[in-house]
Amino acid sequence: MSDKVTPRILQGFAEFLPKEQILFNSIYDKIRNIYEKYGFLPIDTPTIELSEVLLAKAGGETEKQIYRFNKGDNDLSLRFDLTVPLARYVAMHEPNLVFPFKRYHMSKVFRGERPQKGRFREFYQCDIDIIGAEELPLVYDAEIPAVICDVFKEINIGDFTIRINNRKILGGFFSSIGLSDKITDVLRIIDKLEKIGEDGVSKELAAIGADSETIAKILSFVSISGTTDDILAQLSALAESSVKDEMFAQGVSELSEVVGYMRGFNIPDKNFAIDLTIARGLDYYTGTVYETVLNDYKKLGSVCSGGRYENLTGYYTDKKMPGIGISIGLTRLFSQLLDAGIISADNSSLAKVLVVPMDKTVLPFALSTASTFRAEGIATDVYLCEKGMKQKMKYADRLGIPYAAIIGETEMQNGFISLKNMRQGGEQLTLSVQEAVNILK
Amino acid sequence: MSDKVTPRILQGFAEFLPKEQILFNSIYDKIRNIYEKYGFLPIDTPTIELSEVLLAKAGGETEKQIYRFNKGDNDLSLRFDLTVPLARYVAMHEPNLVFPFKRYHMSKVFRGERPQKGRFREFYQCDIDIIGAEELPLVYDAEIPAVICDVFKEINIGDFTIRINNRKILGGFFSSIGLSDKITDVLRIIDKLEKIGEDGVSKELAAIGADSETIAKILSFVSISGTTDDILAQLSALAESSVKDEMFAQGVSELSEVVGYMRGFNIPDKNFAIDLTIARGLDYYTGTVYETVLNDYKKLGSVCSGGRYENLTGYYTDKKMPGIGISIGLTRLFSQLLDAGIISADNSSLAKVLVVPMDKTVLPFALSTASTFRAEGIATDVYLCEKGMKQKMKYADRLGIPYAAIIGETEMQNGFISLKNMRQGGEQLTLSVQEAVNILK
Repeated sequence: MSDKVTPRILQGFAEFLPKEQILFNSIYDKIRNIYEKYGFLPIDTPTIELSEVLLAKAGGETEKQIYRFNKGDNDLSLRFDLTVPLARYVAMHEPNLVFPFKRYHMSKVFRGERPQKGRFREFYQCDIDIIGAEELPLVYDAEIPAVICDVFKEINIGDFTIRINNRKILGGFFSSIGLSDKITDVLRIIDKLEKIGEDGVSKELAAIGADSETIAKILSFVSISGTTDDILAQLSALAESSVKDEMFAQGVSELSEVVGYMRGFNIPDKNFAIDLTIARGLDYYTGTVYETVLNDYKKLGSVCSGGRYENLTGYYTDKKMPGIGISIGLTRLFSQLLDAGIISADNSSLAKVLVVPMDKTVLPFALSTASTFRAEGIATDVYLCEKGMKQKMKYADRLGIPYAAIIGETEMQNGFISLKNMRQGGEQLTLSVQEAVNILK
Repeated sequence: MSDKVTPRILQGFAEFLPKEQILFNSIYDKIRNIYEKYGFLPIDTPTIELSEVLLAKAGGETEKQIYRFNKGDNDLSLRFDLTVPLARYVAMHEPNLVFPFKRYHMSKVFRGERPQKGRFREFYQCDIDIIGAEELPLVYDAEIPAVICDVFKEINIGDFTIRINNRKILGGFFSSIGLSDKITDVLRIIDKLEKIGEDGVSKELAAIGADSETIAKILSFVSISGTTDDILAQLSALAESSVKDEMFAQGVSELSEVVGYMRGFNIPDKNFAIDLTIARGLDYYTGTVYETVLNDYKKLGSVCSGGRYENLTGYYTDKKMPGIGISIGLTRLFSQLLDAGIISADNSSLAKVLVVPMDKTVLPFALSTASTFRAEGIATDVYLCEKGMKQKMKYADRLGIPYAAIIGETEMQNGFISLKNMRQGGEQLTLSVQEAVNILK
């Protein structure tokens, strides 16, 4: 008879083995380190909030995905993003915050979506946002991509491009051709340009009611290309000629100003590009919008997206709080990078050295050697089971620990250790503890 | 008409302002850093698990506190500790783990308790455990307090004492006097010794059925005191004379051996003490048990507790997995330390310097100065709103940023900055960027 419960986790939930977790944490730490280097402040909000508060804004698809339940008299929900908790936090703590309020939040969010490859029901988001009181200067729209640029340089997974656009350009352009209410449809069709060609796109545009003049304008708009400055020049020319729309002109002017600031922030031109097809959440963003792609892995889609919004806290307060921010979906990105072989956890190890006492008699020297290593800042594990040498080395090997400090009676009597390099052919050196410290550091 | 939702969080949930969060994170990081320095591996398990899996062991009080709910066809629960997820993780991933498996896990757990001061419904636990396959040598019982000792030295909140005991000593002793089934009652009574004196304790012991000879034995047992070695000597003497019990003798021998190893791990005698009244969870722990108190703040109770258990994974697998571990309830500890004024967040700041451009014309030099600082590893914020100097300084002051690097046109033309020490009377120096880097570092 077996009354055992099968140990398992739910479908759509991520869980890693320790080596993968070490690698995940190292990327998490790099992101956090850059966020902090730019002066973003940490916050950490409750995972569980009142549904009334958390779902003030939600509706439709989002609401169906919420983990929502009752406990006692309370209608509770798990947060599904870090933006709503930010809005609640800012509205609630406003008198005690300093504006512009620059915060980072790197934590788990929960969405009960239908499980599918690369989608998780519980995953880390790594968000930064800058919230202004009443207003927030445009130069902050350039600080966000500066942070992103440093993040992806630090993570070091190849070349990347921050694609930038301004919602006002899209809004103004589509308004000027009388298609304000069909922006989503048109963008979806434009997205197929490479696949179905200009003729295909024209047909589909006609099918949603665009006349031939409008179609020509759309095709001419999306064919704008060249360097960043070329594109800005073409947009300016359009604003002064065929596209008579105030919002369009404002978007072009904002985009141009932001590009100037981005260069001020030392973002290399090769790391960003204007992309007029980026819209992001249409209801939410009102100005600058970003997406980020890995140049060699464009199939992964945008790995970091965001933009500017007019009013963060409208559901909670009358005060106007414009902001700008971006989010990295880290669990998804990490699992994609692993699957694509762009990163590997094979050599992940936090411990630099495994101290291996040959037997119990040398234990005191082994333990004091480990203490010395740790006092020097060297992460040190000690193998304390009484097993054969083969078993002891297997432990170091399977954990990927790069060095083993073997201590037998001879070593102890001479105050030496045998330092074995586990990676480079097992080369073994007899050294003083201090000499070993120097190598391990 | 106001259709606004009042921004608020649930009672019993913790949320900190950024300065407090910075301080919280710094303590979290210190704990993590020590755990890693001892070779513990990180894991991160789903917050949501199947109730069948998570509650395999739970029952009674614990089960009432669980946040449990249905989503689709699944009966789900939020984890209420990190031990059950560890057991599930080890049982599930056993072939891919290396034993002894040393893991740390620092994350939130959820308990829908009645809210009371210092108790949270969502809080961080910082756990380490060492799990053996079939067996785990006693020397690991000394590694755990070695880690704890380094953690509390690193957190630096005053002197502390790791109280240590062995459940077998308690079990054996109470069995020898025929009170095995009343250990909890007796310990509860003994706990009042200081308050009600020997007479009071004797009366209460008599009330639960102890005869005078038994009471005398109990009083003599709890009066054992002195240095660690004194206590061990008295326990050994008892084991060879009046307490004829094999389990008692084994407990004394284990405790003695563990104390020896603890000294091997360089734990100073002043940082630990044998305390025969510590029992911890009676069903769960089977050998060594620990509690940790801050010497100057004993009222806070144990800030770090744990012990050895015979079988971690019994609900999931037939394989025997003994282990030893401890847990720090960080949210509670942090909030207690803050409330007691032992720590303060007043001077918390991640950013070392705020770059303050006087106006838009100096923006390029200001941004490039900030880039230089960051490239040198200096966390740097830039104030980018067009406000008066007073407002700009107020931003630095309220955030507690120690330095302001003020840049005006004169500074820009000479390639200099004015570095203002925000803490020491606002002293202001005109320096080259490199000189400023040297000071800020």
